[in-house]
Amino acid sequence: MSSDKPLILVCNDDGIFAPGIRALAEVADEFGDVAIIAPDRQQSAVGHAVTVSTPLRSRAFQIDHRFNGQAVSGTPADSVKLAHDQLLERKPDLVVSGINHGSNAGINILYSGTVSAATEGTILGYPSLAVSCTDYDEDADLSGAKDAARRVIGWILSEGLPKGVTLNLNAPSGPLKGIKWARMANSRYVEEFEGRVDPNNRNYYWMTGRMQLLDEGDDMDLSVLEKGYASLTPIQYDMTAYTLLKNKEDVEL
Amino acid sequence: MSSDKPLILVCNDDGIFAPGIRALAEVADEFGDVAIIAPDRQQSAVGHAVTVSTPLRSRAFQIDHRFNGQAVSGTPADSVKLAHDQLLERKPDLVVSGINHGSNAGINILYSGTVSAATEGTILGYPSLAVSCTDYDEDADLSGAKDAARRVIGWILSEGLPKGVTLNLNAPSGPLKGIKWARMANSRYVEEFEGRVDPNNRNYYWMTGRMQLLDEGDDMDLSVLEKGYASLTPIQYDMTAYTLLKNKEDVEL
Repeated sequence: MSSDKPLILVCNDDGIFAPGIRALAEVADEFGDVAIIAPDRQQSAVGHAVTVSTPLRSRAFQIDHRFNGQAVSGTPADSVKLAHDQLLERKPDLVVSGINHGSNAGINILYSGTVSAATEGTILGYPSLAVSCTDYDEDADLSGAKDAARRVIGWILSEGLPKGVTLNLNAPSGPLKGIKWARMANSRYVEEFEGRVDPNNRNYYWMTGRMQLLDEGDDMDLSVLEKGYASLTPIQYDMTAYTLLKNKEDVEL
Repeated sequence: MSSDKPLILVCNDDGIFAPGIRALAEVADEFGDVAIIAPDRQQSAVGHAVTVSTPLRSRAFQIDHRFNGQAVSGTPADSVKLAHDQLLERKPDLVVSGINHGSNAGINILYSGTVSAATEGTILGYPSLAVSCTDYDEDADLSGAKDAARRVIGWILSEGLPKGVTLNLNAPSGPLKGIKWARMANSRYVEEFEGRVDPNNRNYYWMTGRMQLLDEGDDMDLSVLEKGYASLTPIQYDMTAYTLLKNKEDVEL
């Protein structure tokens, strides 16, 4: 790849066969060279997991006779690490992850493999963006999410991003109404498990549950989405709770 | 369990057979009733992964004819969720996770299953603490980590913790020199993969690498540890980068 166009690394957590990654690659292609390096299978809800106890493999693939990629036998964060360290011939100008089938707003940000791929890009020093569509359907209308991603990618490539900050974009399905900056809504899952009994009379549990909002305000990602807009949330991987740290300077332990 | 003593839920990411979880249960036992609910096997570096595509099972076990527990066929975050939603007969007063064999300071906080169990406790509304010893050896001297955990558990049970904040404690092996409040050091891994060729002539990669510090100051967890002290870092799961959000209020996208 001896191009002087920007190189955009495309990853996701739904795996290389998901319609969302193709949609995001199509948008990225408008801005530069595209390298798809992503998990070889569905990896939802893996959070920021990395694979340390088994080796990773990658194999080449092509989507639509158009995009070349590498399918990685690991997590989204693994894929970005391996791309950076071994697979890419030059450093990317941007890392994008998605388009996820399902919302990554509120507390979902913590569980999201899609977001973790973008966060890993930020840790490695690249401007990075996660993109999700709130519709879980594989056939969801991603047109609005693509339009939103196009605007944000253009903005990042022209303005850059501060170190340590990742952008997290969520969009409803259907046409784009607009994009609003938003903070992560405080929320959690309740009624999380459905207990069942197997044919051998042993208990097992399926994770299920619904998100409960513990927060309010027009400035939250979840309320922006509820009003039909796309939400754009700057997130940071420095998890220090500085407020408490400041108050505790004199506490003797 | 019809006790009026505090109930302390003990979890980890090294699994129920790791020496570290027994050490932490011994400390917790000094303060109240202990319930160990933890992964049934090693789950290091799983981050905040949760299990959505397979069902979870749990089975009862006992450590040293003394501590009763449930081994969960999932991640650390799964274990805390399942404990909260299904397995505990009453709500815990405190969630503790560890003692991890290996440091969870700096960027390791993001990859850590130990920390994610404590964070999940915080999300569910319980005061929560993660404890790690910087020595990866299974036979590491955990006496200092135990002493540090004892002080911090006592402090949390008497003072409480603000909502949304988890405490992350790291201690060197050997006797405790003291505990210092610290922030998460900005860091990342470099030279991450070792490429090999298998007998069938195909490439594979082992994750390896060393942590690179991108930060400086006496107030970082990594510097506190280097000086031989235990580090105590308040962390929050709200990942919003508020500084950028504030500056971007008027940006049209």
